[in-house]
Amino acid sequence: MDCIFCKIAAKEAEAEILFENDEVLSFLDINPVNYGHALVIPKKHFDNFLEVPQAKLDGIIKAVQIVSAAVKSSLNPDGINLVVNNGKAAGQSVFHFHFHIIPRFHDDDFKFRLNLKQYKNGFMKETGDKIRLNVKTRNNNE
Amino acid sequence: MDCIFCKIAAKEAEAEILFENDEVLSFLDINPVNYGHALVIPKKHFDNFLEVPQAKLDGIIKAVQIVSAAVKSSLNPDGINLVVNNGKAAGQSVFHFHFHIIPRFHDDDFKFRLNLKQYKNGFMKETGDKIRLNVKTRNNNE
Repeated sequence: MDCIFCKIAAKEAEAEILFENDEVLSFLDINPVNYGHALVIPKKHFDNFLEVPQAKLDGIIKAVQIVSAAVKSSLNPDGINLVVNNGKAAGQSVFHFHFHIIPRFHDDDFKFRLNLKQYKNGFMKETGDKIRLNVKTRNNNE
Repeated sequence: MDCIFCKIAAKEAEAEILFENDEVLSFLDINPVNYGHALVIPKKHFDNFLEVPQAKLDGIIKAVQIVSAAVKSSLNPDGINLVVNNGKAAGQSVFHFHFHIIPRFHDDDFKFRLNLKQYKNGFMKETGDKIRLNVKTRNNNE
């Protein structure tokens, strides 16, 4: 087992654990964007968000909300970001699905650098058509 | 009703809708970080993630997974980010809770600018203690 988050879930590696139940574990990110930056993982290994069975999502998102509320109450940040990185191109570095809970402050040094785009000449509908086709396929398979 | 997402949910404002059920709506962000950037919202208004009743979280996260899978299948991105901004300091601009689903490509121009920190001299445990105290409080109240 080479996955550090599996080791943490199995208590074979140390972590500052914040919340735990049978299926989910939350602990502090050891290299936080801001202090109090927490992670929430399913104890069972799934590489990324798309691999998580739908039945397991509810327990994870509930834990994300519980820990987010606790981060807010205890550290009084000005805001909170939730972030999930799926795939190396999206910044994923540990390939065990995890939610980041990042407390934010007005003067902190975490920023999104982005270049917002605009849809032109029917490209928005075209993009929507492509995605809708696959939404339907997935729903039909369930 | 001044909330643009409430208007979209009520079909009083237009949007490129990707997925819909009784409680949840997904549509394309009109100013995408990358083309195919989708949003998922509860139809009912909640200002942010912490305001959403726990019973409503499951339907939202399931829709996020369904739409994420469809974005992946249809647009074949190299990765996907999920992002939730809670509060102005976290970049929230529409105060109706929403998940961002952002398709990512190796050479795109969306970046996280961050300055990772390190915990020193017991500050990690101290931070964990503060958060755990509030996790317990919240659990006891349920």
